Amino acid sequence: MSPMTERVASAPFSGNQLDRLSARREDRAWIELQRQSASARFVVLADGKICVEGTAPERRLSTFPPGHLPPSAEGTPVVFLGCSELTSWFAISAAAGIDPELAGGFEELRPLALELPPEETGIAATARHLFEWHRRHRFCSQCGHETQATSAGWKRLCPSCAAEHFPRTDPAVIMLPVHGDRCLLGRGRSWPEGRMSALAGFMEPGESIEQACAREMREEAGVIATSVRYAGSQPWPFPSSLMIGLIAEVDDTPAQADLEEIAEVRWFTRDEAGRLLDGTHETVQGPTPLGIAHALLELWVNQAW
Amino acid sequence: MSPMTERVASAPFSGNQLDRLSARREDRAWIELQRQSASARFVVLADGKICVEGTAPERRLSTFPPGHLPPSAEGTPVVFLGCSELTSWFAISAAAGIDPELAGGFEELRPLALELPPEETGIAATARHLFEWHRRHRFCSQCGHETQATSAGWKRLCPSCAAEHFPRTDPAVIMLPVHGDRCLLGRGRSWPEGRMSALAGFMEPGESIEQACAREMREEAGVIATSVRYAGSQPWPFPSSLMIGLIAEVDDTPAQADLEEIAEVRWFTRDEAGRLLDGTHETVQGPTPLGIAHALLELWVNQAW
Repeated sequence: MSPMTERVASAPFSGNQLDRLSARREDRAWIELQRQSASARFVVLADGKICVEGTAPERRLSTFPPGHLPPSAEGTPVVFLGCSELTSWFAISAAAGIDPELAGGFEELRPLALELPPEETGIAATARHLFEWHRRHRFCSQCGHETQATSAGWKRLCPSCAAEHFPRTDPAVIMLPVHGDRCLLGRGRSWPEGRMSALAGFMEPGESIEQACAREMREEAGVIATSVRYAGSQPWPFPSSLMIGLIAEVDDTPAQADLEEIAEVRWFTRDEAGRLLDGTHETVQGPTPLGIAHALLELWVNQAW
Repeated sequence: MSPMTERVASAPFSGNQLDRLSARREDRAWIELQRQSASARFVVLADGKICVEGTAPERRLSTFPPGHLPPSAEGTPVVFLGCSELTSWFAISAAAGIDPELAGGFEELRPLALELPPEETGIAATARHLFEWHRRHRFCSQCGHETQATSAGWKRLCPSCAAEHFPRTDPAVIMLPVHGDRCLLGRGRSWPEGRMSALAGFMEPGESIEQACAREMREEAGVIATSVRYAGSQPWPFPSSLMIGLIAEVDDTPAQADLEEIAEVRWFTRDEAGRLLDGTHETVQGPTPLGIAHALLELWVNQAW
């Protein structure tokens, strides 16, 4: 479950090491047995936040045994996440008004990512993605009827038209355009002055990853790809993206922000980019270590690419 | 729009070279002007098939000028696909009972892919993916209300809860497990005896591409990844996949089909795999050139990897 990869970026949220045992999801009796087992552990979400305990640097997911669970929010399933060596892992979405004594504290997952152990961040990411999907997909997109969660939380079934619905994952490309000794970063229109990161956008029907990367760079920054190379991927459960990281050589067409999605673009030398990574750049704040943009920049700065 | 890539497989359906001009999709007046222009061209789909003319090897998409269109199926939008140098391209989904004289012939896109010019295969793939999405997403997954196509066919809007819905693309991993001088292929449970190809499966929430690849190989064939490398991607509009191609080194754990999704797995030497590619293998039929599996195998056989 932890394949080594060469020249590929790793980033938070991809640390889930559970054996998902997907073939068991349809086996209700087996799932029920796991669920009632004394070694079962439940993680608890509410409104996209997750229940944690302890203080940094020793934060952990709060896990609950089967007999001590807060009530689930109406219509939300118990999700079977998979098994570690000794434990079956489940997730529930708690009803509003959960007892704070019982609950530990609920926190946003994004900032937590650098405080939890990577495997727990990955488990939390999987659970968050699934519950956000359930929340946004209560009804059948084919006929409008209310659907029911099944398959231990991994499928929704329409009792009216029999359509099966599976969790949605939206592939997005995120890329570092480079030319010679310089790389290009951009500032999103809603970002504060001085904050810059990699360019990114959702993939569209009828595109390869390389085409989507070339299109986004051209649309957002007016730069033209001459080569595109895959550099790693990251699950991004806000709410349901898969970030596909790329480093792309571009030609010497002048870069220009589109002013629609990107307010400003700027070239950085390798030295300057190094100062973005260690937070010592004079005027610009670079990508945070939460996202794969940071790992892309690191690969390029270290010429590990 | 055609970035060079190194050691990356290319495959049918990724040839769409249109400038999608996505920033123009919300500009109704501009779209209307393009749509009525004498140089506009419409491609026509019906039930997932596409209208073509000519006979191989000179097949082309049938394209219709604005004044000579068959009626659209009820509730289907006119989709703006983008612009080539001289032409604005649109797609419609024809109502049942279209005049066969007007229509040319409707054919399945899959076998057509090797007969049409690559750029037309890519345009057809984009249009098919979009219309299949519209067909399966008439209703709001958040509240069940009927939604309306907007944004020149690239968005659906819920008039009741104001949710915006964008086309769905499902990332899937497709991989060639290799060990020393041998690669592993599998036979899907529903495939005829003697037909074998790469292993594949949909990505799940909370996974990186590399993790999904390792999981699928372990689940379907019992083999354990030691390294995973990206090898290319392919849009696969049947109905909405993005195939992410990988070549993965696996350890010497004996391979074993899961008998659920895969009926049989088998190792092939590089020589044998070469005979699969040129169709001279004695007993086994390998992947067709339609899918990226063929390109993965070719990369590995030619040691271009």
